[in-house]
Amino acid sequence: MSIDPARLQPMANAIRALSMDAVQAANSGHPGMPMGMADVASVLWSKYLKFDPSAPDWADRDRFVLSAGHGSMLIYSLLYLSGYEQPTIEDIRNFRQLGSPCAGHPENFMLPGIECTTGPLGQGLAMGVGMAMAERHLNAVFGDGLVDHRTWVIAGDGCLMEGINHEAIGLAGHLKLGRMIVLWDDNDITIDGSTELSTSEDIRARYMATGWHVTSCDGHDFADIARAIDEAVADHRPSLVACKTVIGKGAPNKQGTSATHGAPLGADEIAAARKELGWDAEPFVVPDDILAHWRATSERGKAAHGDWNERLRASGDKSEFTRRMAGELPQGDAMKDYLASLIAEPKNVATRKASEMALGAINPVLPDTIGGSADLTGSNNTKAGGIEAFTAENYGGRYVYYGIREFGMAAAMNGMALHGGVIPYGGTFLVFTDYARGAIRLSALQQVRAIYVMTHDSIGLGEDGPTHQPIEHLASLRAMPNLLVLRPADVVETAEAWEIALKQTSRPSVLALSRQNLPQLRLEMPDENLSARGGYRLKSADAARKVVLIGTGSELHVALECAEALEQQGVGADVVSMVSTELFDEQPAEYRADVFPAGCLKVSIEAGTTFGWERYTGNDGLNIGIDRFGASAPAEELFAKFGFTVDAIVPKILNKLNG
Amino acid sequence: MSIDPARLQPMANAIRALSMDAVQAANSGHPGMPMGMADVASVLWSKYLKFDPSAPDWADRDRFVLSAGHGSMLIYSLLYLSGYEQPTIEDIRNFRQLGSPCAGHPENFMLPGIECTTGPLGQGLAMGVGMAMAERHLNAVFGDGLVDHRTWVIAGDGCLMEGINHEAIGLAGHLKLGRMIVLWDDNDITIDGSTELSTSEDIRARYMATGWHVTSCDGHDFADIARAIDEAVADHRPSLVACKTVIGKGAPNKQGTSATHGAPLGADEIAAARKELGWDAEPFVVPDDILAHWRATSERGKAAHGDWNERLRASGDKSEFTRRMAGELPQGDAMKDYLASLIAEPKNVATRKASEMALGAINPVLPDTIGGSADLTGSNNTKAGGIEAFTAENYGGRYVYYGIREFGMAAAMNGMALHGGVIPYGGTFLVFTDYARGAIRLSALQQVRAIYVMTHDSIGLGEDGPTHQPIEHLASLRAMPNLLVLRPADVVETAEAWEIALKQTSRPSVLALSRQNLPQLRLEMPDENLSARGGYRLKSADAARKVVLIGTGSELHVALECAEALEQQGVGADVVSMVSTELFDEQPAEYRADVFPAGCLKVSIEAGTTFGWERYTGNDGLNIGIDRFGASAPAEELFAKFGFTVDAIVPKILNKLNG
Repeated sequence: MSIDPARLQPMANAIRALSMDAVQAANSGHPGMPMGMADVASVLWSKYLKFDPSAPDWADRDRFVLSAGHGSMLIYSLLYLSGYEQPTIEDIRNFRQLGSPCAGHPENFMLPGIECTTGPLGQGLAMGVGMAMAERHLNAVFGDGLVDHRTWVIAGDGCLMEGINHEAIGLAGHLKLGRMIVLWDDNDITIDGSTELSTSEDIRARYMATGWHVTSCDGHDFADIARAIDEAVADHRPSLVACKTVIGKGAPNKQGTSATHGAPLGADEIAAARKELGWDAEPFVVPDDILAHWRATSERGKAAHGDWNERLRASGDKSEFTRRMAGELPQGDAMKDYLASLIAEPKNVATRKASEMALGAINPVLPDTIGGSADLTGSNNTKAGGIEAFTAENYGGRYVYYGIREFGMAAAMNGMALHGGVIPYGGTFLVFTDYARGAIRLSALQQVRAIYVMTHDSIGLGEDGPTHQPIEHLASLRAMPNLLVLRPADVVETAEAWEIALKQTSRPSVLALSRQNLPQLRLEMPDENLSARGGYRLKSADAARKVVLIGTGSELHVALECAEALEQQGVGADVVSMVSTELFDEQPAEYRADVFPAGCLKVSIEAGTTFGWERYTGNDGLNIGIDRFGASAPAEELFAKFGFTVDAIVPKILNKLNG
Repeated sequence: MSIDPARLQPMANAIRALSMDAVQAANSGHPGMPMGMADVASVLWSKYLKFDPSAPDWADRDRFVLSAGHGSMLIYSLLYLSGYEQPTIEDIRNFRQLGSPCAGHPENFMLPGIECTTGPLGQGLAMGVGMAMAERHLNAVFGDGLVDHRTWVIAGDGCLMEGINHEAIGLAGHLKLGRMIVLWDDNDITIDGSTELSTSEDIRARYMATGWHVTSCDGHDFADIARAIDEAVADHRPSLVACKTVIGKGAPNKQGTSATHGAPLGADEIAAARKELGWDAEPFVVPDDILAHWRATSERGKAAHGDWNERLRASGDKSEFTRRMAGELPQGDAMKDYLASLIAEPKNVATRKASEMALGAINPVLPDTIGGSADLTGSNNTKAGGIEAFTAENYGGRYVYYGIREFGMAAAMNGMALHGGVIPYGGTFLVFTDYARGAIRLSALQQVRAIYVMTHDSIGLGEDGPTHQPIEHLASLRAMPNLLVLRPADVVETAEAWEIALKQTSRPSVLALSRQNLPQLRLEMPDENLSARGGYRLKSADAARKVVLIGTGSELHVALECAEALEQQGVGADVVSMVSTELFDEQPAEYRADVFPAGCLKVSIEAGTTFGWERYTGNDGLNIGIDRFGASAPAEELFAKFGFTVDAIVPKILNKLNG
């Protein structure tokens, strides 16, 4: 399609009109960005983006990410105008209202065609990096015929100022992700006012220093936009296109100011803008000829989709490719065989090592996994099963050296999972979930299968001390909706935890793993995945049951030892392994009541904050935990200091029983 | 002091010997960095750093930050060698053992001379930015005679790769913090191996793009190190000095490899290193002549300290400067007068607005505050009381436009608070505590008075939707040790919360504030700060008490309305305002038992996760909350959807009472 301003200008103005009308109707929202980037988006949709509105999930579509998610009316306008089934014009009229798929920020779970949920700044761009990684990997595996698409990102100054931007572009530059193109809405405005209030950076020079191709254009000159994008497409490096724009372009009195950023323009200014733009249609009405031009933008993509369908039909990889893109696991008994080997020959290893062993069974038979670590490969034990490094020279590799970029890693994992065809896992220390937390939350909100391998999960890491010892982390992750937190206690539970995490199709998992060795406590071949119950009775009371001890992870063996000591004094004690409170809470009430029967003293034992444990122990239970920061010392001394010994715990229980 | 290699080389080797011996004795730690940077540190200590070992807290000392905190033996060696009272050689022998101030990572609360706690990468450098900001501000207020020092940072590749590095150096470059100098341990090695595994960035170019002066040196050539530092000192911009070093320098077989990074060298390699370095002394012994040279490095600083003492004695600002550096609040009744005005004329405002009003009373009489926001000034309502912007042209200003840099802001706030003389507060949306969480944790661990003004604290923010609506955030912050979370319910409690936060001398506070207007519920002048009790009875039951309703923040008025409805049905109901669970937990048992008497149904009402509330309601209580992500819609509709209405809550209570 040629770059014809006479055709494109009214198309761009349709975005402007819909955006200002929707924000005005909602009396809430951000008109400035959609109006400023309307011209750039019109060129992208008309000439470059490969998409098929009738198949929003087509595997080989280009991925488009609106990283500056507050400008959500831009993507809603584009989807409607170019002919997606949703949103309807009625949905747009209900922008930001309960039940409308046109939420305040774009949400992948509300609307096909939204590739990822954005709004938390910087993360859209960083997820784009993950999408581009997945694309190159699948291209290496399945070839150009099945996988050959680009990742486009629209980002604002905020996205570029966030720290995650540094991590994301460092990774993309290093991995030479040349099929990723970032269109920067370079408008010199942030919420507080001019960007000069807070930054003096030469952004172009920074991107160039990080291995990116950089070019610029006048974001309101259609030919110049196309010239710059052509240049970006031709370059083998990832590209930043600085699109010089006027925020709120078209609103004659407010454009170019932060007043257009995050508030309705007001009736008067909208009237003035309509006049300025020569836009006569009623609110929410797009004239037929303009709509027809928009609908025509999908013709290229539809044709490409048809050709691609032919290639898929003819491909010997069809069933494997389709399986992977559907997110289904292959058939196989590898995990069962591995479990049998553990039962046959028990292993006392750290659960981080157990995780490596589980991956040794998983990775060879599950080609979907792409592992990695934020520069702690040897500590997280994440490189296993013979997988090779994923590098610019070998996109077929399945192990990413993410560097010291926890947040960027987690966001890239989200992007990979959203892209589909791969199952990302990545490691760091549990305490550094704090660095990645914004992206872990988006894993949960976006309902993606990302697996966080979080080792060194307590004071058991020892000498590194309080900066590295998680205390509040298990609780703070359990508090997050739609996130599975799994803290396995031994090599068997770790295998079960991996199986659970891999089987989740709509939520992420955190595996909390020990640095220190732990005894194998599960010695019989299970009929089912016991950890999948969340909590289960590992040991039943011998004497009359008076106590239920609840242990997790590295404290489960302590709970067992306490139970033994109690039984020796004639006090019957169950031991429950609570691998995952979320999974336990999902069990039927009868099951839960059976595990935690009324009338017993409940005792939680976990080397972290006691916060939250009253849910299981009640107010009249006992909570053995650590409600302060840790300390630097060998692990055994710390466990003694903080009272995780039979000698410290059993007297407390007896006191409570007799008190 | 001249740059005499014959003198400096043995001094540097003393650091190497102590570092490898201590790590070996602990069988744990990081010898590579101290050995690699020993030469640079020796030059810095000998010729540049302004310090007085006999007065580690001297206000005008240079600040030295070991951002690469895993190399802690470097700073422990330096403090011991240059004559600080602590650590003793015995402390160093006990490196990483329980009770030794020589913890795995440097901890400001364990050892005078440690300016900040480091280990979580990137944050030391970012705290250095805050220290440099505080220095310039106090210089503007008190003049060169009292405040005139530099901030020095040693940072590794990890610190420079973390996202926070981008935020921190962007802020420093923009603010032209020319008295900050970063010595980069440019050794091409990370834990996973060569930096080439994960980065291809031209770091020097990136710093230059961000407004920094950049120079390099051979990190093992004393004269060249001094040449580069002289250049950095002379430049008016913040400086990055790339010190080309060999990690583990001196260990002949392992130097230059990641093998020296995080593990003991082993007895054989230590023996080889001693030979290589010509170091004959026993482990943990430093020959007298070398120790004497080290002790002499403090002479410059001691003299400077003496001169400074004279200037302070003669200064008319002495008492005010001393008060501020001691962290004491001035006398005054401004808050009381402000509270009286609210009682006289009640205000129904959002608590974010109430916070602005409180700051309007505080800022004019408390010159210590330095406010700011991560680009949400108008939303966080943080610019108040007539304070001016803190800019490169006006360091006397007290309001920082931090830009879209939540993590960088929080770390800078830590740096300012650690520097002393200022009380930093800063704002963003509560949901974005996720972005800053690593620094909030260091606020708590370091025991500093940083005040986080976190607005838009629930679904009550409305249309921005689930990406912006906190759900798990209050719980996840309450789970963190040594952090006060304050969620005031009205304009009066907001004033009380500010008073509480300002009076904390050894912990940070988070103020969780509403976007939406809230009725003033406190209508009588209090005798004491009621919120300081954490939770208090706002309303006593009229009928016989059967229920205790617990509300926080924007849900307190809902609790009151529910109580009224219950009373109309003859059900007596107390209402407790739980402003801060941490403060409540610190009250005497009798007080807590009086607020939550046995035998009543306890009902928590908070628009966030129910996780953690069983601590107050027990297992047989009711928890009204939101255990899923939010939605995009007007606030009133969301409160109805999620059941925060009298009509939704009261029947649940009655059912429970009758059930």
